[in-house]
Amino acid sequence: MKAIRIENGELNVADVATPTPPDGEVLIRPTLLGVCSTDLELLKGYGGFSGTLGHEFVGVVEDGPDDWRGKRVVGEINCVCKRCDMCTSGLSNHCRRRTVLGIVKRDGCFAERFTLPAINLHAVADSISDEAAVFTEPLAAAYQITQQVKLEARDQVAVLGTGRLGLLIAFVLSKTGCGLTAVGRNDKTLSLLDRRGIRTARVNELDAKASFDVVIDATGSAAGLEKAIELVRPRGTLVMKTTCADRHQVNLMNLVVNEITVVGSRCGPFAEALRALARQDFDVTELISARMPLTEAPAAFERAAASDTIKVLLTPPGAA
Amino acid sequence: MKAIRIENGELNVADVATPTPPDGEVLIRPTLLGVCSTDLELLKGYGGFSGTLGHEFVGVVEDGPDDWRGKRVVGEINCVCKRCDMCTSGLSNHCRRRTVLGIVKRDGCFAERFTLPAINLHAVADSISDEAAVFTEPLAAAYQITQQVKLEARDQVAVLGTGRLGLLIAFVLSKTGCGLTAVGRNDKTLSLLDRRGIRTARVNELDAKASFDVVIDATGSAAGLEKAIELVRPRGTLVMKTTCADRHQVNLMNLVVNEITVVGSRCGPFAEALRALARQDFDVTELISARMPLTEAPAAFERAAASDTIKVLLTPPGAA
Repeated sequence: MKAIRIENGELNVADVATPTPPDGEVLIRPTLLGVCSTDLELLKGYGGFSGTLGHEFVGVVEDGPDDWRGKRVVGEINCVCKRCDMCTSGLSNHCRRRTVLGIVKRDGCFAERFTLPAINLHAVADSISDEAAVFTEPLAAAYQITQQVKLEARDQVAVLGTGRLGLLIAFVLSKTGCGLTAVGRNDKTLSLLDRRGIRTARVNELDAKASFDVVIDATGSAAGLEKAIELVRPRGTLVMKTTCADRHQVNLMNLVVNEITVVGSRCGPFAEALRALARQDFDVTELISARMPLTEAPAAFERAAASDTIKVLLTPPGAA
Repeated sequence: MKAIRIENGELNVADVATPTPPDGEVLIRPTLLGVCSTDLELLKGYGGFSGTLGHEFVGVVEDGPDDWRGKRVVGEINCVCKRCDMCTSGLSNHCRRRTVLGIVKRDGCFAERFTLPAINLHAVADSISDEAAVFTEPLAAAYQITQQVKLEARDQVAVLGTGRLGLLIAFVLSKTGCGLTAVGRNDKTLSLLDRRGIRTARVNELDAKASFDVVIDATGSAAGLEKAIELVRPRGTLVMKTTCADRHQVNLMNLVVNEITVVGSRCGPFAEALRALARQDFDVTELISARMPLTEAPAAFERAAASDTIKVLLTPPGAA
């Protein structure tokens, strides 16, 4: 079968054997796949990953326990031991021995078939299209913010960065009732938010130093993080949502001077994301910039890295 | 009168006029002064400060309201407007228009006389010596950690850095009942902690990756901050206690991956520090490495910057 792999730091469209699911795992045939900025960072060398890329998917269980076979599913990406101190204290996403789909020591979903533990699966309701369901993983990551930080109606909240993840975060936070401003520099994404009634500001026109109660950094850049530190008020909260392969050269002084609380935030609750998609709280499919064949992944990755691209989806061979 | 000033980036022992306290302020004759790492950072250019240095003092009120005249005092260093959004919401240490004694737009206490608002003053009990009282400001900064982070008996807590501030933090946290380890690389300061029954570890011998619930970074260095990020467990808390003039080049990735909460922490509660000194919870005077005349401040600053120095005190002309 075809698989999109990083091997010796190079991106390859490889021919590999179809995997056999180990005990407790299922074989999944993905029907639609999403390219995430983390995939682009892995390509740049972040984490020293080698293997099959990809962690955003919707698909069908082809082999596994009867109660899952034939089901349409999405899946959590952290594969955990259930025994370490993190797992046994309810923090299994931080399992000490975890592998992570297409990110840490586990082949990902950018292939015709892949495996995942059955306990990672979530069934997808018929009312949710593949085009929406493929956003479950990043949408769950956006919901993680609401799990970690209590947002109140009186809070002024800025989302910095209107890329793939920043837009999903703006969608999610727009439903919380807080005073939301999405801050970016891309006319296309800002107008997409404007049309949904979400207040927007261009970063270079924003005169709001140290004024937001909560700032979410979804820029993936050192300059963005520094801007986020500048925007948050004394004793306010800064949520760091994006990772970046480079060491950040950032002036962190104001974290101390202004006694800012920084909250690192990673993977989130799939169930909540699926409920939002079922409710049609927002139309995530408007974020799809391109849909390309899996075997054209190298071109798709280039497309995903372009500044005017939001989401690139990949279609495996044989999928509709 | 003599004053220790930064002028055009240079440290000077200057002759200046004795200040006249404006409305609401008092004239203070300091009797003992403390050199802080922030003074050394200001000398390196942090904050672009010019004027008289110094913010750690104990002294006597020479001129001001009757209820303060003649009293032995220490004083809070943030001079605030009482009207801005920070002041009116109970966060006056973050006053938008504040001046800060010897740090931001206000001459400091390294002089024969200086002024401070009367509302900043705290009377010093007779039972507290000048040598102990001069530690009130940094000791309050150490107590600020206990105001911001709830430490429980089951928490494993590391204080990273055993300099002036790190030692005071270790003293304060040793009274909270948490599982404390002070981590440093200086034999002298580590043995000082050992003698007080505080568990210590040498930083290069510590095999404790991602294991502490709470880590306090009191190193004042980028390498120290990176070590602190390495030591804190997933979903743990990192308290940033020290400022540093340079931009930090730090790998911040694990803040996101491990969903760490970072808490910036600056000035703290004077009343609590004075109560601890009155109770003689710990003998802070053991930290005094040298006592030098105010007029020898340039040599005293050099001494304070040396790795085997803990606290350098300055004695104004005419003080005992």
